[in-house]
Amino acid sequence: MLGATYDSQVCSIARALEAVGERWTLLIVRNLFLGLRRFDELQQNLGIARNVLAARLEKLVEAGIAETRPYSERPPRHEYVLTDKGRDLFPVLVALMQWGDRHAPTPGGPPIVMVHRGCGGEVDAHRACTSCGKLLELHQVQALRGPGAAAA
Amino acid sequence: MLGATYDSQVCSIARALEAVGERWTLLIVRNLFLGLRRFDELQQNLGIARNVLAARLEKLVEAGIAETRPYSERPPRHEYVLTDKGRDLFPVLVALMQWGDRHAPTPGGPPIVMVHRGCGGEVDAHRACTSCGKLLELHQVQALRGPGAAAA
Repeated sequence: MLGATYDSQVCSIARALEAVGERWTLLIVRNLFLGLRRFDELQQNLGIARNVLAARLEKLVEAGIAETRPYSERPPRHEYVLTDKGRDLFPVLVALMQWGDRHAPTPGGPPIVMVHRGCGGEVDAHRACTSCGKLLELHQVQALRGPGAAAA
Repeated sequence: MLGATYDSQVCSIARALEAVGERWTLLIVRNLFLGLRRFDELQQNLGIARNVLAARLEKLVEAGIAETRPYSERPPRHEYVLTDKGRDLFPVLVALMQWGDRHAPTPGGPPIVMVHRGCGGEVDAHRACTSCGKLLELHQVQALRGPGAAAA
């Protein structure tokens, strides 16, 4: 074991949190995973101040977690998509979601249920399929509305 | 898919971050996982202000993530240990550590390597053992000093 001599300044968790630990950042990443891409969509969905969202997105781009992609030339407009580095945060978000489902539940049950695309089994704590047992990667997982989702 | 109609206010990730999203909180939880328990140990290891540490620990206890345990009667002293709810954050910390190892690496390599206790295989992205394939739970995992650890 490491115990008390472990130097907490040299730590991959601390370094990860430098990139994604700021308030709102992981919720923006969550929204990018869910397919929201445009500034106004993100802003309306999160209900945060535009300057805060702009600052967080700029940091995500600087950190190489998200990138901009033009979707209109006149007027010039861009949207935000996750890079490979950003998509690699999938296990972090799944782990946070599952902890929240269990320990800070919403009254109606989980708002989102993640399933094995094409199989239908659920995604367990190891991101294995509860039906077929396969260890699942991001592209094999589908997010569906769960029983606790707000009415559309 | 959920798409833009997803109501981000009803979200287990957001609820999880309410409990553990504040600056320092996950690093305190990390230290409790590593076996640090006493206020002064935690304070020296993290190098944060005592009032900030005290506030974060109080919130962790209120949230049921950590609990106090007396270790001295005269003078009365207590230490902090994770509850079951706190130990359930293990997948979150492993996922953050692995992302940091990969995308925000320290020059010498990973400071910590997690291995399957008694087997020696490493813990992969699904918390499966790279040697025997077993899906590992917290008590089966040992944290060892990695190549990037600071000299003791």
